[in-house]
Amino acid sequence: MNWQSYLEQNQERFDEELLDFLRIPSVSTAPERAEDVRKAAEWVRRRLRAAGVPFLELIDTPRHPVVFGRWVTDERKPTLLLYGHYDVQPVEPLDLWESPPFEPTLRDGLLYARGSSDMKANMLTLIQAIEAIAKTSGQLPVNLLILFEGEEEIGSPNLPAVVRQRRDQLKADVALSADGGMQGRETPSLCVGLKGLTGCQIDVRTGTTDLHSGSYGAAVPNAVQVLIQLAATFHKPDGTVAVEGFYDDVRPLTDKEKGSIAAIPVDEGGYQHEAGVLGLWGEPGYSLLERRWTRPTVDFNGIWGGYQGQGAKTVTPCQAHGKITCRLVPGQTPERVMELLKRHIERHTPPFAEVTVDPLKGSANPYLLDTDAPVLAVAAAALAEVFGHEPRFVRSGGTVPITEVFRQELGIDTVTLGFSLPGSRNHAPNEWFDPSFLPDARSVFATYLTKLGSS
Amino acid sequence: MNWQSYLEQNQERFDEELLDFLRIPSVSTAPERAEDVRKAAEWVRRRLRAAGVPFLELIDTPRHPVVFGRWVTDERKPTLLLYGHYDVQPVEPLDLWESPPFEPTLRDGLLYARGSSDMKANMLTLIQAIEAIAKTSGQLPVNLLILFEGEEEIGSPNLPAVVRQRRDQLKADVALSADGGMQGRETPSLCVGLKGLTGCQIDVRTGTTDLHSGSYGAAVPNAVQVLIQLAATFHKPDGTVAVEGFYDDVRPLTDKEKGSIAAIPVDEGGYQHEAGVLGLWGEPGYSLLERRWTRPTVDFNGIWGGYQGQGAKTVTPCQAHGKITCRLVPGQTPERVMELLKRHIERHTPPFAEVTVDPLKGSANPYLLDTDAPVLAVAAAALAEVFGHEPRFVRSGGTVPITEVFRQELGIDTVTLGFSLPGSRNHAPNEWFDPSFLPDARSVFATYLTKLGSS
Repeated sequence: MNWQSYLEQNQERFDEELLDFLRIPSVSTAPERAEDVRKAAEWVRRRLRAAGVPFLELIDTPRHPVVFGRWVTDERKPTLLLYGHYDVQPVEPLDLWESPPFEPTLRDGLLYARGSSDMKANMLTLIQAIEAIAKTSGQLPVNLLILFEGEEEIGSPNLPAVVRQRRDQLKADVALSADGGMQGRETPSLCVGLKGLTGCQIDVRTGTTDLHSGSYGAAVPNAVQVLIQLAATFHKPDGTVAVEGFYDDVRPLTDKEKGSIAAIPVDEGGYQHEAGVLGLWGEPGYSLLERRWTRPTVDFNGIWGGYQGQGAKTVTPCQAHGKITCRLVPGQTPERVMELLKRHIERHTPPFAEVTVDPLKGSANPYLLDTDAPVLAVAAAALAEVFGHEPRFVRSGGTVPITEVFRQELGIDTVTLGFSLPGSRNHAPNEWFDPSFLPDARSVFATYLTKLGSS
Repeated sequence: MNWQSYLEQNQERFDEELLDFLRIPSVSTAPERAEDVRKAAEWVRRRLRAAGVPFLELIDTPRHPVVFGRWVTDERKPTLLLYGHYDVQPVEPLDLWESPPFEPTLRDGLLYARGSSDMKANMLTLIQAIEAIAKTSGQLPVNLLILFEGEEEIGSPNLPAVVRQRRDQLKADVALSADGGMQGRETPSLCVGLKGLTGCQIDVRTGTTDLHSGSYGAAVPNAVQVLIQLAATFHKPDGTVAVEGFYDDVRPLTDKEKGSIAAIPVDEGGYQHEAGVLGLWGEPGYSLLERRWTRPTVDFNGIWGGYQGQGAKTVTPCQAHGKITCRLVPGQTPERVMELLKRHIERHTPPFAEVTVDPLKGSANPYLLDTDAPVLAVAAAALAEVFGHEPRFVRSGGTVPITEVFRQELGIDTVTLGFSLPGSRNHAPNEWFDPSFLPDARSVFATYLTKLGSS
């Protein structure tokens, strides 16, 4: 039997076990979910064992474990380092979910669950492809190293140290990150660029207690107002970031980059509809794709302070809080941008308030692969074989922190290959994966492994 | 026995029953507390009955009942309309309370509980003063009408209609509101001015779902950012309200008013310390007392949107919310100010966002009594008799909506006489009342009733 037939014969079982994986609420940011995150790690380890991976280890970190695997079949063959993450984003606001986030639900042909698109379906189909080849040919066409982490959604704070400590065990020719997507069902694509990330929580304090807004409001500072005035200085009215020096290190797009982005057809109305927003927005002077793929941002992820219950409470709040993250592009570094942010905040803090900046635990450098890089050719060929035409090179506005770490620590490039579709609501309520895409995902991964072995 | 001896002999019982009253969590804004609010109304009715009030009625409203009482002793005597409220503010944020808000706790000589200062101690000592006179002289020196409501802390949305409907039953010569305070333990004072109130909740929507800040953040609007930019337009950097027309109707202070405010000694450092704030703040060009007593404000009471949990969630929020209230001064009306606010918000709403303005159910006109008003003389004499010197005329930044309604509907002025002290944390965590002040409160109320009867 060849791997193609094996995949066909086991399709029902393979689809079923995705539901089991999705039922584990592996929310890495929530301390009370720590046990569930470990459960997911153990689920993944068992699944890799069942696929035939001979050496497996849970590497403990200060927070969530890394699933490490090794399968050396022939030292003359190329070695591939597989990357993925088994953790998921938080589910709040829960009331916007149409079905419970950890009860996978099929609705109108889409499978709804937190982590379905980001990235449990991608990880599992990769494991299933490995199993199909291993069970039908007795061995793999490549040597495998596996690093599946549980902290990607909190910025991979511990994986870089693991990579540094295990450099000798992680010698590979190329890395494959399954944390990616396709441009469309009929539009295979390869992601060559990812944005970097940094961010912080901002805590404003103006006093020791909330006060009566009548007795005090006209005479003492209001922490919510201080935060509003401070936060309003981060952007100009047109949407440009107003933090001094923020754009200084941004490497301008080359004419070639501009041209290749401009050549990609964009349906702005379709994008707006799919995003469910009342209008498009962003930095003037850049096209929609340029903004999404190549322009850095300062994003407000959350804000809170004062009375938030029903009705009114006439109070002058003494505390207010905001969460922001920045997406970074080539030329920028998280350290430098955080420094600029801190300086900006310091400069805009009034004398009657205390502002504390608590930087994110994880951060990431931006990542960009040259489209001529040889490591892309094998992946492109695998996509072309399954889909019948050449893939498009694209970038993502998202962040996979480890790609740049692999480059710096191991000296290897990372090919990103995944099957999430646009609009699949990663990080948002009602995240979905299109299950009719699962067989193609398995075929592409198996084809890629086979082609890499004979490359 | 005279009422003085009665008060002395019953002091322990009188102090004890305040604790019972404070244990009822009569938070009027919280729908889940509706039963507790009714319990408080029934407690007050029973207490008035025990004091000797012959006619009592709970007047139902769409929300919380009004305790109505009548005691006609002699039609030739003056008729006094007593006003108070038995509801309290919400207790959030709960974690800032040093003892549970509805378990009255004596600490360092102060009695801590929600509603202790605003205004259960004031209401109860007034009832106890009535009892002392009634039980010792067999009848009252005045005729009494009583309106104790349960909705003051939500802006008295239903009491004005009750007053209008019962105009014929509410014919009185003067009203006494017990919802007030003294300038200091040794500084008796009479409040002649109250600010008005209006406000709203602002709901911002930019789309139908929260989105991944990497895939969408650079290209779609962020509801938290829209709210921040909008809210930042309400004030100029110096603290002046920037809503167009906001100050247009404000009646400027007369030289006499300015002079009498300037004559009052102010300890700015002491005020700042007592408020627990890092600095003082407010509209430039006005003294601390002028701002607190005579200048209108736009206050942010609360804000929320996006992710507020632990750690990071890289999301572009589609909704954000804010609560604001405005304190108004003579010349302004809630209707006009709300209209200006709505216009301002409309003008500053970007095309890619929907902003909904939900006005407060209750609002209030500002109230100002001429210091020469004859109704003040009796109250001033009562204070002078108990404290040994003349009271000071002051204003408050707070709001008691019904005072202006009594003036418009019943044609009577309201004397505000209460015993809360500065810094007693009305509306804030750790609200307190000084229990050593309870005997003086009862004596002043009894003296006032006696003097009014012979005036």
